[in-house]
Amino acid sequence: MKRSLSLLFVLALLCIAHHTCLANDGYNLWLQYRPVQNSPYLSSYREQAQHITLPGRSATSNIIQEELQRALGKMLDTTPEFSNAPNPATTLIIGTRKQLPELSATVDDETWNNLGTEGFIIRRIQHNGKNTLWIAGNTDQALLYGTFDFLKLLQTHQDISSLDITSIPKTKIRVLNHWDNPDRTVERGYAGSSIWDWHRLPDYIKPQYIDYARANASIGINGTVLTNVNANAQVLTPYFLKKVAALADTFRPYGIKVYLTARFSAPIEIGGLDTADPVNPDVQQWWDEKVNEIYQYIPDFGGFLVKADSEGQPGPQNYNRTQAEGANMLAKALQAHQGIVMWRAFVYSNETPDDRAKQAYNEFKPLDGKFEDNVLVQVKNGAIDFQPREPFHPLFGAMPKTPLMMEFQITQEYLGQGTHLVFLGSLFEEVLDTDTYAEGPGSTVAKVVDGSLDDHALTGMAGVSNIGTDRNWTGHQFGQANWYAFGKLAWNPAESAADIAQEWSRMTFGNDEELATKVKRIMLQSHEAVVNYMTPLGLHHIMGWSHHYGPGPWVTDKHRDDWTSTYYHQAGPDGIGFDRTASGSNALSQYAPEIQQQYSDLSTCPEKYLLWFHHLPWDYTMKSGNTLWNEIALHYQKGVDQTQDMLDDWKSIQNHVDDQRYDQVLAFLQIQHNEAKWWRDACLLYFQQFSKKDLPEGVPQPEYSLDHYQNYTPVFVPGI
Amino acid sequence: MKRSLSLLFVLALLCIAHHTCLANDGYNLWLQYRPVQNSPYLSSYREQAQHITLPGRSATSNIIQEELQRALGKMLDTTPEFSNAPNPATTLIIGTRKQLPELSATVDDETWNNLGTEGFIIRRIQHNGKNTLWIAGNTDQALLYGTFDFLKLLQTHQDISSLDITSIPKTKIRVLNHWDNPDRTVERGYAGSSIWDWHRLPDYIKPQYIDYARANASIGINGTVLTNVNANAQVLTPYFLKKVAALADTFRPYGIKVYLTARFSAPIEIGGLDTADPVNPDVQQWWDEKVNEIYQYIPDFGGFLVKADSEGQPGPQNYNRTQAEGANMLAKALQAHQGIVMWRAFVYSNETPDDRAKQAYNEFKPLDGKFEDNVLVQVKNGAIDFQPREPFHPLFGAMPKTPLMMEFQITQEYLGQGTHLVFLGSLFEEVLDTDTYAEGPGSTVAKVVDGSLDDHALTGMAGVSNIGTDRNWTGHQFGQANWYAFGKLAWNPAESAADIAQEWSRMTFGNDEELATKVKRIMLQSHEAVVNYMTPLGLHHIMGWSHHYGPGPWVTDKHRDDWTSTYYHQAGPDGIGFDRTASGSNALSQYAPEIQQQYSDLSTCPEKYLLWFHHLPWDYTMKSGNTLWNEIALHYQKGVDQTQDMLDDWKSIQNHVDDQRYDQVLAFLQIQHNEAKWWRDACLLYFQQFSKKDLPEGVPQPEYSLDHYQNYTPVFVPGI
Repeated sequence: MKRSLSLLFVLALLCIAHHTCLANDGYNLWLQYRPVQNSPYLSSYREQAQHITLPGRSATSNIIQEELQRALGKMLDTTPEFSNAPNPATTLIIGTRKQLPELSATVDDETWNNLGTEGFIIRRIQHNGKNTLWIAGNTDQALLYGTFDFLKLLQTHQDISSLDITSIPKTKIRVLNHWDNPDRTVERGYAGSSIWDWHRLPDYIKPQYIDYARANASIGINGTVLTNVNANAQVLTPYFLKKVAALADTFRPYGIKVYLTARFSAPIEIGGLDTADPVNPDVQQWWDEKVNEIYQYIPDFGGFLVKADSEGQPGPQNYNRTQAEGANMLAKALQAHQGIVMWRAFVYSNETPDDRAKQAYNEFKPLDGKFEDNVLVQVKNGAIDFQPREPFHPLFGAMPKTPLMMEFQITQEYLGQGTHLVFLGSLFEEVLDTDTYAEGPGSTVAKVVDGSLDDHALTGMAGVSNIGTDRNWTGHQFGQANWYAFGKLAWNPAESAADIAQEWSRMTFGNDEELATKVKRIMLQSHEAVVNYMTPLGLHHIMGWSHHYGPGPWVTDKHRDDWTSTYYHQAGPDGIGFDRTASGSNALSQYAPEIQQQYSDLSTCPEKYLLWFHHLPWDYTMKSGNTLWNEIALHYQKGVDQTQDMLDDWKSIQNHVDDQRYDQVLAFLQIQHNEAKWWRDACLLYFQQFSKKDLPEGVPQPEYSLDHYQNYTPVFVPGI
Repeated sequence: MKRSLSLLFVLALLCIAHHTCLANDGYNLWLQYRPVQNSPYLSSYREQAQHITLPGRSATSNIIQEELQRALGKMLDTTPEFSNAPNPATTLIIGTRKQLPELSATVDDETWNNLGTEGFIIRRIQHNGKNTLWIAGNTDQALLYGTFDFLKLLQTHQDISSLDITSIPKTKIRVLNHWDNPDRTVERGYAGSSIWDWHRLPDYIKPQYIDYARANASIGINGTVLTNVNANAQVLTPYFLKKVAALADTFRPYGIKVYLTARFSAPIEIGGLDTADPVNPDVQQWWDEKVNEIYQYIPDFGGFLVKADSEGQPGPQNYNRTQAEGANMLAKALQAHQGIVMWRAFVYSNETPDDRAKQAYNEFKPLDGKFEDNVLVQVKNGAIDFQPREPFHPLFGAMPKTPLMMEFQITQEYLGQGTHLVFLGSLFEEVLDTDTYAEGPGSTVAKVVDGSLDDHALTGMAGVSNIGTDRNWTGHQFGQANWYAFGKLAWNPAESAADIAQEWSRMTFGNDEELATKVKRIMLQSHEAVVNYMTPLGLHHIMGWSHHYGPGPWVTDKHRDDWTSTYYHQAGPDGIGFDRTASGSNALSQYAPEIQQQYSDLSTCPEKYLLWFHHLPWDYTMKSGNTLWNEIALHYQKGVDQTQDMLDDWKSIQNHVDDQRYDQVLAFLQIQHNEAKWWRDACLLYFQQFSKKDLPEGVPQPEYSLDHYQNYTPVFVPGI
C-alpha cells in the first residue's frame, strides 16, 4: 500500500508535468488533493501529518480518518499513523472536549461554549514537549469540519506553523435546495438529471451520494432538501420515505440532515381528505400523523420546505388563511421532533393588481411575530426572481420578530444557465453586504440573516442547487465554484468573494501563481460581465419566455403579465425603466427611509439599480456624461468585451490546466462570448425601435436584423 | 512520456494487486487495456508492437495510431515507434491494399474483393526477412476494425504467433437505435438521460461522444440512429440539423454514419402542408427538398428510420396508403444520395380484430417485392415485443424479395430494466440460430438477416440502445455486455454467445481463470433465469402496466386489450396459454409447414414455447411428468434459485474485481434476486386463483397475499 501510494504520488506529479496523461473530468471538485510541490511548507506538512491521534470511534471519526488517509496520501505521499490516545509520537490531535478532558481543560469554558456543536478550533499546543497541532470541537461533526479546514490549508499551501483558528458557523441551517422531481428531471437544472436515483433506492447507494456528502461537509453544508419546491405529494408516501431514509442514513455521519418539500394539498392528494385547510382538525391530524410517520423512517428528519400560493402551488390562500396559519400548522406537527419549517416568501400573483416586486412584502410584513418558533421564512435575495442583479429584498430588515432565511440560486437560471462562467460569490457578497438600515447604519442583510441584528437563534441560508448527474456535478466546471461559495458564505457571510474565489481556484486547479491570478481575474469580473451583457443599469427579467434562456426583451402578451419582459423594462418612445418611486409603483416605500431617499433621488441612486427604480428618457444624462441610450449600449458592449477578456485569460493558462477541464471551459467561454454578442445585438436592436438613436462609437452594427433574433426560438432548452 | 507510461504500467499492476487503490467506474467499457501479466505471450506482444508501420494519413489513421499508443502503453508498458513506410525495424504493418501495392500483390484479387470496404485480414508475412504481422484491408476503416481485433487478442491473452484471420462483416448496416428524445429523456432508458447534449451542440463536443464512437468502432457498429422512433419532427429542422452535423463530423472518422427518425407527419408539422399523403406531389417534393437540405449539413447522412402506423405514430394508413407507398416516398428522396430507409414492421392496432402476433405479417407479407431497393424492413426478433423469450417473427423467411433487418432490443425493457443481469447474447443467438425452413432446412433467421438465403446485398441489424449518461454508459455494468454482444453478432451472426461472453468478460474484468469461469457461468445462465422467474414456458407480456416493470399478470381492462396481461396469458379455471394453433388465432399458419407441424403438435412443441401457442389445462402432463401447474411453479422457483447462484458466484470472485464495479453488481444482483421472488410470488398467487392447486414441494409460500402484490404500485419508474 505504501509503495502504491508512493507511485500514485510520483504519477500525479508526472500528470501535472504531462497534463495530458490522465483525464481529469472534474469529479473530485475542490477536493483534488494535488501533490504539494514547489512549496516551502512541504516538509512541515509531512512532519505534522506523521502521527495522528483520533480518539473518536463514531462513523464520523471513521470518515475523518479516511479523508486524511486519502488526502495526505495524495498531497504528501505519506501514510499517517493513527492512534486512539495521545502518545509521544503524536503530531496532530483531532479530538473533542469530552474525548480529551485533560487537554481540553487548557481552553476556557466560554470558548468551548461558543463553539456550539459545529464550531472548531485549530491551534498549536505543547504536548509531550512537542509543538503539536490540535483540531478540537465539541462533537465529531465539528472535528470533521476542522479536518476539512486543515486540509484546505495544505491544499492552498498555507503556513501552518503558528495556527490559531476559531471557526464557528454564523448560520444554523445551511441547506441546498434541490429542485429535483421524482422523475429525475431537475427544474432549472443544467447539469444532467437528478442525482437521486429514486428507482434504485433504497437498495443501491451510489458512490456519488457519498461524494456529495463529502463535498458538502467540506464546505459546512449541513442539510439538503431533496425535492422540488414545486412539490409532488408522492414523496411523503412510504414508498418514497424508505428511499429518503436510505439517503438520510448515508448523509448522517457527514452531519447532513435531510429535508423534504411538503405539498400543501398533500392531505387531499395522498391522504384522501377533501380539504387541506390548515385550521381543519382532520388536516392538522393528518399532518401530525404524517410527520410522526416520517420520523419513524428518519429519526433526525430536518423538516419541510414549502412553496405555497405561488405559481400554481396550492397554499393557505385557497382557504382564505394566512401564510402564518399555513406554516404554523406544519410547524406544530414538527415541534415534538425538533423539526423546522422553511416557508418561502416567494408569494405573488398576476391577479394582484400591484407591482410583483411589492407583493411578498405586502403578504408577509403584517405577519411578523405570528410564526411559530420553528418557522424560518425563506426569502430570495431580491424581490423579483434571481436576476443577474437585484436590489436586496425589502423583507430583509422588515420582519425583526421572524427569522428570515436567505435563498440564493446557485443554479444559473437567469445567468447563462449551462454554459456561462459567472462566479456568484460576487453576487452573494453584494447582497449580504448591503445595508438595510433597518436598525440604523450597519444593519446589513448579512446581520439579518445571521440573526445578530434581531437576536435570532434559528438562522439559515438556502442555495438552489446546481448539481446533476454530469460527471463534474455542475455541468460547467466553474459551477462548482458557486456551490463552494454558497457553502462558505452560509458558514460565514462576512467572508470575501475574492478570497473564496482564490481559495477555490487553488484547490481546484492548483497553486501556480499565474494560473491563480488569471482564474481569480476571470471569476471576479464574471458577474459584472453577465450583468453588462444581459441586464445593465437595473434592467431585469428580459430573458426568453419560460425557459429564460437568451434574450427576450420582446416577450409580451402572455397569459401572465408578470412573466413578460415588457412588464419589466417598460421601454417606449419616452424612455425605459420601471418607476418604483412614489410616482410609480412606490415599491421603494418598502425599504428603510435611508434607502428610499438614496434610491429615489436620481443623483444618489446607484446607477447599477437605475432602471430598476426609475423610468427615464433615452437622452437622460448619466454620470459619465453619456446619454442613457449610449450608456446602455456601451454596457452591453463592455459585457461582450469582458467575455473576450475572460476567454483570452483562459487561453493564456492552457499549459497549467489538464486537457479535459481546459477544453470544456474553453468551449463554454466561446459559447458565452457568442451569446453575449447575441444578447447585445438582440437587446439593442429591440430597444433601438424606441430610442430611435444610432449606436454609439465602439458598438458594432448587429450582424442580423431584429426579425432574425425575434424569430430565433431555441427549443428543448434544458431545465423546464 | 516514456517514464510516465512506465509508471502508469506499474501503477496499474499495483491497482490490480490492491484493487481498491483507484476506483474503476466502468467508463472504459471493454477497452480497459489492463496490463498484460501472467501471460506467456507478454514478450511476443512486446516484440510485435515495437515498430508499427502505418502509411495512412487520414483522420481514421490518426485514430488507429492513438488507440495503439493508448492500448499498448497500458497493456505492455511500451511506446511503439511509428513509421510511414515499411523499413527493417517494422514489426507490425497496418496498411491498405493501395497504400502497400508491393505487399498487397502477395494476396490474390479475390481475397481483396471479398473484403469489401470493411473486412480485414490479420496475417503473418515475411518482410525484410522478418516474421512480421500485417493488418490489411481496402480502407482505413477496415484497418481500424482490424486494429481493434488485434488489440482484443492481446486483451484476452491469445497466442499471436501464427495468426491468419479474415474477418468480413456479414451485414452491411449495423446500427444502434437510440430511443432518445430531444428533451434528453430516453424511452425505455435505464441508464440516466440521453448522451446527446443537444442544447450544447454544435459548439461543445463532449469527450463521451468520442468514446462512444471508439466503443462502437471496436465492435464493428457503423451507424447510429440518434433519435426516438416515436419521433419529433423538430429534429429535421435546421436548428437540430446543425447539431446532428456536429455529431456526424465527430463520428465520421470512426466509420459511423448518422441516421435520424423521420416522423411521417413532418410535412404538416414543420412543413406547413396540410397533408402527409405519400402520393401527394407536394408532400413528395417537401421530402425531396428536406432530404437535399439534410445532405447539405451531412454529406454522408445514412438515412431514415421510420415507425409508422403504430402506437399513435402517423403513417401511410392515415391516407389509405400501404406501408410500401410510405416507405418508397422516402426512399426515392434518398436515392440520389445513397441514403436508405429502415421501415419498421412493428405495425399493429387494437382496432384490428386479430391476434396482435399476426398483424405485422398480415400487413407486410403481401408487400414483398414492392419496396424500393434502398428500403430495409426492420423486424423485431419476435412478433409481440421484445419479450424475455419469443418464437422468431414469422416475417423472417416470408418476404424473400425484401431485405429484412433484425431489430433486437439491447435495453432491457421487459427483462429487468435497470438492475437485472441478463446476458442478451443468449437471446440473440437463440433467435438467429432458429431455422425458419423458408427454403428448406437450414434456412436460419441469421441467413435471412445476412442476406445469404435470398441473395440480398443490402442487409442490416439494429439494436435498441441501452446507453445513457450513467458513468458506466449502461447503468448496469453487465449491460455493457449486451451492447458488445449486439455489435459482435451484427458483424457475424454465427458467433457463439458463449465465446462472446468469455471475450467480453476477459476484456472487461481481466484474465484470471476463476473470474473468467464464474463470470461466464453467471452470464450464460442469466437469460434462462429471467425467463424462468418472469415468463416461463411461453408465457409473455405479463409485466406491470405501461412501464413494464415488475409482475402484472392481473393487468386487464385498459383502453387497449393488446397491452393487457390477461389478453396474453388467457388464464382461467380451464387453464392457461394463448391458443395460436388452428383452433385459436392460428398465428402458427404464418410459419413454414415444418414449424407449424412441430409447434402445433403438443408432443413436439418445444416446452419453452408451449403457452405461446397452446392453451392447456392446469393438470396437463409435461414431459417431466409434472402437471403444468407444478411445472410453472417450479420454473418460477428455478429462476429464483438461479439468481441466488449468480449472487453466490459473484461473491466468490470479490477479490478479483475492483471495488466500485463489484459493489454495484452485487447490489444489483441482490435487487434481482429479491425481484425474482417478487415475480414468483405475485405470479403464482395470481394464477393460483384459477388453478386452485397447492404449490408443489420446493416452492415456498409467498410472504404476502395477492392483494399486497396487486396494490404495490411502483411510481416514477424510469424509461417512460
